Amino acid sequence: MSVEDRLRSFSALWARELAPYKVEEPGDLIKLDAMENPYPIPVELRDAWNEVLANVELNRYPDASAHELKLGLRDMHQLPADVHVALGNGSDELIHLLCLAFSRSQGACVLFPEPTFVVYGITSQVFGMKKVGVALKEGDFSLDMDAMLQAIDTYSPALVFIASPNNPTANRLDDGNLEIICTHAPGLVVLDEAYYRFAGNSRVSEVADIENLVVLQTMSKIGLAALRVGVLFGSEDWVDVIDRLRMPYNISTISQAGARFAIEHESAFQLQIEAITDERQDLFDRLEHLEGISPWPSTTNFILFRTISGAADQIFESLKRQNVLVKNVSGGHPLLQDCLRVTVGTPRENGLFLAALRNSL
Amino acid sequence: MSVEDRLRSFSALWARELAPYKVEEPGDLIKLDAMENPYPIPVELRDAWNEVLANVELNRYPDASAHELKLGLRDMHQLPADVHVALGNGSDELIHLLCLAFSRSQGACVLFPEPTFVVYGITSQVFGMKKVGVALKEGDFSLDMDAMLQAIDTYSPALVFIASPNNPTANRLDDGNLEIICTHAPGLVVLDEAYYRFAGNSRVSEVADIENLVVLQTMSKIGLAALRVGVLFGSEDWVDVIDRLRMPYNISTISQAGARFAIEHESAFQLQIEAITDERQDLFDRLEHLEGISPWPSTTNFILFRTISGAADQIFESLKRQNVLVKNVSGGHPLLQDCLRVTVGTPRENGLFLAALRNSL
Repeated sequence: MSVEDRLRSFSALWARELAPYKVEEPGDLIKLDAMENPYPIPVELRDAWNEVLANVELNRYPDASAHELKLGLRDMHQLPADVHVALGNGSDELIHLLCLAFSRSQGACVLFPEPTFVVYGITSQVFGMKKVGVALKEGDFSLDMDAMLQAIDTYSPALVFIASPNNPTANRLDDGNLEIICTHAPGLVVLDEAYYRFAGNSRVSEVADIENLVVLQTMSKIGLAALRVGVLFGSEDWVDVIDRLRMPYNISTISQAGARFAIEHESAFQLQIEAITDERQDLFDRLEHLEGISPWPSTTNFILFRTISGAADQIFESLKRQNVLVKNVSGGHPLLQDCLRVTVGTPRENGLFLAALRNSL
Repeated sequence: MSVEDRLRSFSALWARELAPYKVEEPGDLIKLDAMENPYPIPVELRDAWNEVLANVELNRYPDASAHELKLGLRDMHQLPADVHVALGNGSDELIHLLCLAFSRSQGACVLFPEPTFVVYGITSQVFGMKKVGVALKEGDFSLDMDAMLQAIDTYSPALVFIASPNNPTANRLDDGNLEIICTHAPGLVVLDEAYYRFAGNSRVSEVADIENLVVLQTMSKIGLAALRVGVLFGSEDWVDVIDRLRMPYNISTISQAGARFAIEHESAFQLQIEAITDERQDLFDRLEHLEGISPWPSTTNFILFRTISGAADQIFESLKRQNVLVKNVSGGHPLLQDCLRVTVGTPRENGLFLAALRNSL
């Protein structure tokens, strides 16, 4: 019997139809495609970090409860006792576990505004759940609340994902809308704050008051993408569900240590975040002055911009030939037609990107 | 609506019924409960390892394809081109993804000899799959092949897990039986070689010839438990399924680098493995001479032993009071009645364990 026959006989052929998540091989390109912090760990922290690393017991399993990292997170967010914390191997794993929890419900549905972070859709598909995308408003990419509430009433989604600030549109979606969505949603609402550090405040503390809200965050965008640490904040009952579903040693010892280290030295990382938001303003201003390029305002560490009609693919390729990798989101959703997304890099990287972009126009 | 009501309305209450995987908090106890390598990274490799760590770009996402680590694994096992490799966040994640692949099949079943690694059963439960445990033979814990083949015919399992060497019985189960099981099994057979380094040869290369066989291994037992790296070897089609199901950045950069490092310096780690297998023999001999203690021969880095009737709980607690943590497997399966499992530690640790054990008898 072939592998295909075996998969078929156990209703598993669907797994061969999933598109593998494509990651562009960066090679030596200037990497402005993945919302990474362009700065390495601050120089003055290197010795302390190397000391932390040298003391990790590689031969021992990680702390399954990640006790110290959770204490650090509690402290950083000044969490009240009724806000609980679960950790994932990146927020990817937390999204995966949230879908898993609801996946046994016949016809269960996952709802989110579109365009947004692609992992919500991919993961729903992995768990055989129905995806319902509700288009953001054309123009400013704000939430179409009438359409959202109608879709929630129509589809009764088990899960609603709201990324705010949103990727790839770079604007906040939650302000003033979150409570209304939570009130309407029959299941769980997941506010994904992956980019909140570039936007200002977090709404983490609200999970204590809004009973069907959990908040996701990640250490990836602030400089620890290599370590894969995602965080879920929620009431005790939701966190308990995730803790039962997750694998006990899902966060490596070094990832726990790295995340704790970043929290302990938050002020140093905060300086990098401020440098990035300053650069973001500069990059936006310069993009705005380029003929044929229309950037949207950003509350994140990236900028979405529109090229003249039909030019996105060609500009993307031209940038790549000039050694600059951005993200071509043009084919991803009708609202993103002719759009590219660029991560805010160092001043030098942004300068090289702008020069290459000018060249390609 | 309460969280409970929301979970109920989406058929998700099952998630609250899963038992969380209990991990004993070791505190300052001598940790002989989790099959860890008792030795830290060899002294002569420290500088080189610290240098590897210092060069990791924390701010960049990991290599999603883990290209270099896979090359190292290919080289180490001298894999032919038709053996492919997938990586997991520990073999836990690979077991999770294997169950996920088959979980949409109505009434799909996961079969394994018992007692064995508890994660097979836990993960089947997470995915709502039927578990079928086939008891090992009393006395020597060998596979009851008649019962295995009959159970395979009766239940047509999607997945058969065979841990060989087996945990917690410490003996090999595959010799001479694996091909027969593969021939009978209608789905996939997973040979879990977590402990093969303490037993001799691996059967990795056979996945090229046996079309429904994949092999799992882990870096955890040879000294990298902190880093969470599991490996699946299989034909292209099976590896392709896992690669579509997994999250793209499931192995952190440091975990990839650590696993590569251990492969590059394999001879140094091999010396630790030899020290452990030497100690194992010594520990076995000394256990065998203790009145009221009956150890089973071991092909792993741990030893299972039986106490006199009804004494396991009390001996476990007594050891703990004397600062030694072993695993009490007595309640886990009828065949394990009165049994404890001890990981082979350093000579000093084993001496302290034996002294404490003598004390407790």
